[in-house]
Amino acid sequence: MRDNIQIPVKRDNTNFPTFVRIVEVGPRDGLQNEKTIIPTAVKIDFINRLSMTGLSTIETTSFVSPKWIPQLADADVVLPGITKQPGIRYPVLVPNIQGFERAISAGAKDIAVFAAATETFSEKNTHCSTAETLKHIEAILQLANKHDIAVRGYISCSLGCPYEGVVLPKTVATLAGQLFQMGCTEIALGDTLGIGTPHRAQALIHAVVEHVPIQQLAVHFHDTYGQALANIYACLEMGIAIVDSAITGLGGCPYAKGTSGNVATEDVVYLLDGMGIKTDVNFDALIAVSQFVTTLTNQPPRSKVAQARLRV
Amino acid sequence: MRDNIQIPVKRDNTNFPTFVRIVEVGPRDGLQNEKTIIPTAVKIDFINRLSMTGLSTIETTSFVSPKWIPQLADADVVLPGITKQPGIRYPVLVPNIQGFERAISAGAKDIAVFAAATETFSEKNTHCSTAETLKHIEAILQLANKHDIAVRGYISCSLGCPYEGVVLPKTVATLAGQLFQMGCTEIALGDTLGIGTPHRAQALIHAVVEHVPIQQLAVHFHDTYGQALANIYACLEMGIAIVDSAITGLGGCPYAKGTSGNVATEDVVYLLDGMGIKTDVNFDALIAVSQFVTTLTNQPPRSKVAQARLRV
Repeated sequence: MRDNIQIPVKRDNTNFPTFVRIVEVGPRDGLQNEKTIIPTAVKIDFINRLSMTGLSTIETTSFVSPKWIPQLADADVVLPGITKQPGIRYPVLVPNIQGFERAISAGAKDIAVFAAATETFSEKNTHCSTAETLKHIEAILQLANKHDIAVRGYISCSLGCPYEGVVLPKTVATLAGQLFQMGCTEIALGDTLGIGTPHRAQALIHAVVEHVPIQQLAVHFHDTYGQALANIYACLEMGIAIVDSAITGLGGCPYAKGTSGNVATEDVVYLLDGMGIKTDVNFDALIAVSQFVTTLTNQPPRSKVAQARLRV
Repeated sequence: MRDNIQIPVKRDNTNFPTFVRIVEVGPRDGLQNEKTIIPTAVKIDFINRLSMTGLSTIETTSFVSPKWIPQLADADVVLPGITKQPGIRYPVLVPNIQGFERAISAGAKDIAVFAAATETFSEKNTHCSTAETLKHIEAILQLANKHDIAVRGYISCSLGCPYEGVVLPKTVATLAGQLFQMGCTEIALGDTLGIGTPHRAQALIHAVVEHVPIQQLAVHFHDTYGQALANIYACLEMGIAIVDSAITGLGGCPYAKGTSGNVATEDVVYLLDGMGIKTDVNFDALIAVSQFVTTLTNQPPRSKVAQARLRV
């Protein structure tokens, strides 16, 4: 059974959206962190199945160097291999101009770039300072503009950094503003460590909306500390209407050091359905893909909703 | 690292409490649903360890018939066996007058009684109609009053019933009002199935506060669908200041049909600490007990916070 009767509560200063666009990041942010390497044909099948659930945005792969992320070394084959459905966007992650050119050759129409909220994370993750990262992104954006390609900008470590600890909202807000001014049409605020809690998440949104319209802001929570849905709820309350998630919480094994899965799409859709916020995602179709994914990774679902559903 | 810097967000109509009293239900609601039967001395050790974490309320056991719940057949030995700490309350669950008398003999100073929000659940769970249940509770309350014993009233299936489905807030509110009028000093609203979502939880609180002061209302969420923390956040926002939880999410195996764990105390404390809401619970001490519990049940922690902490 599901919690889908609507009983309104009078709340005067909330800005809950009526529709949330879910950005499914399982094939990219999920699989890039899984130990299991999934065969190319199976990845394509996976993305094709996701395309039938009602999801309108599916981040499919990443054109980073295969040396960095061998799990996604087949990006040049995966992206053109997908059966593209009308109305669905299939963005890909792009780290630099080389990656951008590979993405274009593979038929990308939407891309995502990424920066980190702290210098140390940036250096450790990409061997670039934030200033250098922004220069690369600017070059990509110029090319993207010529090809009429929409660019999302990710900011990782938005609520904390493994090296620098606390990250202030205004630091993230400034960086978000720079990415927006440079031409990113959507900014995704990532809690890479999954350490955030609701008031901090709201304080972050509060600071960033000084620089980026809330309609163009997405939230990207990892569920390492189990706080993701509470944080998402707190952000919805402020008017956030784009939420990232990965089917079955792909992206990290709960028992391995240092890993942390994305919040599960099933859990987010259950939350939104229960709150009467539309997503166009068919819950039962999603659960069927969730079950498919558990057979790929040979692990039980990390989504509590999937656990509850699949044992019935 | 933890998310414990405070960045205020201006929100005008929220009623977040400054202090939350956590009611630890692991030894009772947790262990009664675990397959593993824990030896009496180990249970006592477990409760004594919980007593050192800063928790001020620990529901220790249940004086139901051992035929119903063999896991807690040793209630008469566990309760007097605990090293009682000053300032800590050790309530026990009591189903009827016989149970009440056993509880008194064992030294109980606080008890809890329970009713269900639907007739069908009541009949299936206790072979009593709601009217009969209320009569039993009334008899217990009269005796409790004589012994100067505080009585908490649980309402199970507050957000849905496995037999009747939807449960309307006004149904729960009426029952809560009856229990309160009869003398219960605290009413705990249980989402037994763990199916609720935040707006429904708020609608429930909204209805119940017509009959019971919010200071005397507790929320008791199971995390079957992963919604517990989002629901707790939504209830805190309305002023709820008593939250039930079970260490490491005791109370149900995530992979067994029909079971559903309580929300994990570690996850609740992490949420509250991150929001700057005091609990007096020492987080690190709690994690140490969490680790102890995983050795008892021989299962990995179901708390995401404990998973994240214990792999570091």
